[in-house]
Amino acid sequence: MALKKNSHYQQLLEKSKSIQIYNSILQLLHWDQETFMPSGAIGPRSEQISLLSELIHEEKRSRGFKALLTKLISFKTGAIKAKGLSLPQKVIVREWLKDYDRAAKLPSQFVKNFAQVTSEASQIWAIAKQQNNFKLFAPFLEKIIDLNRKKAEMYGYSDHPYDALLEAYEPCATSTRVAHLFEPLQKELTQLREKITESRKIDNRFLHRKVDPLLQQEIGHLFANKMPVDPGYTRLDLSSHPFSMALHPKDSRITSRIIPTHFMSNIFSVLHEAGHSMYEMGLPTETWGTPLSESVSLSVHESQSRWWETLIGRSFPFWKHMYPALQKKVPNLLQKVPLERFYRAINTVTPSFIRVEADEVTYCLHVILRFSIEKELIAGKLSVLDLPEAWNAKFKELFGLTPPNHAQGCLQDIHWSLGDFGYFPTYALGNLLAAQFFQAFEKKHPDWATRLAHGDLAFIREWLKIHIHQHGRRYTMDELVKRVSGKPLSHQPYCRYLKEKYAEIYRFE
Amino acid sequence: MALKKNSHYQQLLEKSKSIQIYNSILQLLHWDQETFMPSGAIGPRSEQISLLSELIHEEKRSRGFKALLTKLISFKTGAIKAKGLSLPQKVIVREWLKDYDRAAKLPSQFVKNFAQVTSEASQIWAIAKQQNNFKLFAPFLEKIIDLNRKKAEMYGYSDHPYDALLEAYEPCATSTRVAHLFEPLQKELTQLREKITESRKIDNRFLHRKVDPLLQQEIGHLFANKMPVDPGYTRLDLSSHPFSMALHPKDSRITSRIIPTHFMSNIFSVLHEAGHSMYEMGLPTETWGTPLSESVSLSVHESQSRWWETLIGRSFPFWKHMYPALQKKVPNLLQKVPLERFYRAINTVTPSFIRVEADEVTYCLHVILRFSIEKELIAGKLSVLDLPEAWNAKFKELFGLTPPNHAQGCLQDIHWSLGDFGYFPTYALGNLLAAQFFQAFEKKHPDWATRLAHGDLAFIREWLKIHIHQHGRRYTMDELVKRVSGKPLSHQPYCRYLKEKYAEIYRFE
Repeated sequence: MALKKNSHYQQLLEKSKSIQIYNSILQLLHWDQETFMPSGAIGPRSEQISLLSELIHEEKRSRGFKALLTKLISFKTGAIKAKGLSLPQKVIVREWLKDYDRAAKLPSQFVKNFAQVTSEASQIWAIAKQQNNFKLFAPFLEKIIDLNRKKAEMYGYSDHPYDALLEAYEPCATSTRVAHLFEPLQKELTQLREKITESRKIDNRFLHRKVDPLLQQEIGHLFANKMPVDPGYTRLDLSSHPFSMALHPKDSRITSRIIPTHFMSNIFSVLHEAGHSMYEMGLPTETWGTPLSESVSLSVHESQSRWWETLIGRSFPFWKHMYPALQKKVPNLLQKVPLERFYRAINTVTPSFIRVEADEVTYCLHVILRFSIEKELIAGKLSVLDLPEAWNAKFKELFGLTPPNHAQGCLQDIHWSLGDFGYFPTYALGNLLAAQFFQAFEKKHPDWATRLAHGDLAFIREWLKIHIHQHGRRYTMDELVKRVSGKPLSHQPYCRYLKEKYAEIYRFE
Repeated sequence: MALKKNSHYQQLLEKSKSIQIYNSILQLLHWDQETFMPSGAIGPRSEQISLLSELIHEEKRSRGFKALLTKLISFKTGAIKAKGLSLPQKVIVREWLKDYDRAAKLPSQFVKNFAQVTSEASQIWAIAKQQNNFKLFAPFLEKIIDLNRKKAEMYGYSDHPYDALLEAYEPCATSTRVAHLFEPLQKELTQLREKITESRKIDNRFLHRKVDPLLQQEIGHLFANKMPVDPGYTRLDLSSHPFSMALHPKDSRITSRIIPTHFMSNIFSVLHEAGHSMYEMGLPTETWGTPLSESVSLSVHESQSRWWETLIGRSFPFWKHMYPALQKKVPNLLQKVPLERFYRAINTVTPSFIRVEADEVTYCLHVILRFSIEKELIAGKLSVLDLPEAWNAKFKELFGLTPPNHAQGCLQDIHWSLGDFGYFPTYALGNLLAAQFFQAFEKKHPDWATRLAHGDLAFIREWLKIHIHQHGRRYTMDELVKRVSGKPLSHQPYCRYLKEKYAEIYRFE
């Protein structure tokens, strides 16, 4: 960049980079808490997280940041005022303004209070879930919903308060638009689910025999190492819930968890989290510290994890290559199981109560349920005390089943206790995006299945890097999907993919 | 504390606590770098450390901090101005002033530059050591010595510039005083070493057979778990050099390293680092964030690690209890070795080139060598290019041997490359302190050996907690040693301990 070192742009760049560095340190605090932190250290850890979060929020909305930004861009019209900026620099300035605007709307005291309430609430939630005691959690959930309503008011919205919350995770989403996408999706998924229910059952019991946790860890590393990434920039550990945490494109860590009677769960977690991680590793390092090296949105992020977990990781060609290695690891379970049978078994569709254990067909129905419920909670149309009943009724409607308890019902997810309202829809949007991206990928690489069956994964990551990762926040989700697929986001590619795949697996027309 | 929430004292307390929290986060960055960080992430990690270090330094010397401190204490006379402070609060204010004074003397630009130079230098040092190439490191060492001289000038001193550097690690030490302690120490240690050289050799070759690294890790945990600490507040990992890192009394982590042909090294590292860790865990949590919950000095810190590693960990009663468990772990090596022979083997005295591998008798001689050399380097009496020759000459004088190369000579320690001049003496002072503390402990617990032989370690930690840990920086090193032992610090308790122990081991009178 040809700009002078002391230009307003350069000064703001320094500030932006500092904020990102503090953010990356915050990530390490979270990662450590979930992996290696001594259990008794939770108190001091909360203090560290709270102080650093406050510092980051203060820096984001500082007078210094605003003053420099004012020199570069008009707050009213969004027109770039600074001379001599390149196109990427203009994009950076435009995104800085968005970030500043959002941060400036929340007073530090509110952010601090929100963090304290949710920190306590998430601990109470864990107990409530364990004890199947919804009433224990209810007052905390009420507080959190109230805070989220306040947050929505502070952010502002034109239609529904829920839109202001959605925006934090997917700036292109509104509740109306999500509803329009979810409506036909629900219809098609339900039809497909019913068709499958009428088909012949697939026996997958051999996937639920016990596998030694240490051996499972080894298997996890086998799959992690298969991913086309530089091993010097990543690592795999265990935690109670799998996650991916990127401190930097050169320091992106994932975790998995071990369930003794469900060894495939560990493998799919590794693939899922590796997908998130490859996105972060694919962000450009040159512009690190600016929005050009940040992910577009949680929807796009989820498209990357689901891409590797489902479109690749549950595909036949992937297992054509990987199955022999897995068979060698657990010969007593798999040596007599032919690849074809294994492939069908890992793709069985069974309505279940738990979202994170759901198959590809029913997964989005779990999200649709949460979307409709949290919208009503935020709007005040559903009271917290009526939540369990509403959940069960909606579940019955979507799955034809009633959850046996709250732990397998409305208490199953941690998200609400963490204050995350508006997050769930991105899980479904991610699936739609992945399928739509995949169509474009298939066009470019019609031989993808053959190459994948021969163990070539690098060209897949390369395609994602060129078309998605390397752009950072240069394009919005809508711009990106249009750019990549030529069409606006739709439920159709995902539904088509599912229908074709499961017609073959369940052998119906 | 009865003070109002918005009193100057309370405001300063908040600031002090924030600084400590940032410091604890910095510790995590270092810990992670040495344990689990992906190797390729060193670049971003340096940026994180540098930014956070700068923030901490700025906070320590901020105007706000100074303004509040001025209300509480006279900068000229050190007299407390604030009304209604308790005695511990007065101590806190007094120590805050010391810390502020020291921080204010170094401009941020200098601290940043120092960090950058040493960060680069320590990487070059590692290469130079590996290649046995002193000339590669020499220009960096020159820069570092120059920066340390500047630092000494900024801090100020009355006698020798080296005093200003020593003070950072042990406020009670001056070069004159250290020299007075080291002179008789050197004489006595040399005499003892010579006497041992004339005695019959002890065969310890069985301690240098290969032991599987995974088994060694297991053994490390066996000993770590034996320590009288709450396992919820600590953990043990591996790193290339053993260290202890405390984020908080409730989050204190240690590491060890595995040398396949030296399995006892791992055990002694665990005991050494656990000693540091127990000190940190013994600091009071109520006053955390103030100097009352900080360690006195590196000398006192080292007294705690050497206490557990040597006075306890190399004692006969400790092994009377622990030996059977160790024998079980490595039966092929130890099952035919009686306890008595094992005890003598782990306490053999052999002059060696490497400080960190030295026995109890020769260890301090290594420190004395470094003390005399770094004092001359700082004073400009010894030039960097003459260092290797001066090192070898002094080594010959103290040990009767000449190092075969620089890697086993003046390039062996990382300290100088990190900019740490004045650090080494605390390693010897720690040994003197430990022995002097131990005399007081023995008076209080004349039956310590019997209790220890029965596996009771808790009463030992309890004594240390009451007499040393819980005071934090309430007393200086001199005040503490006087309080505990009734006498000023001296070389005699340590020399007496060594003479008695080794007369028995080497069976001379």
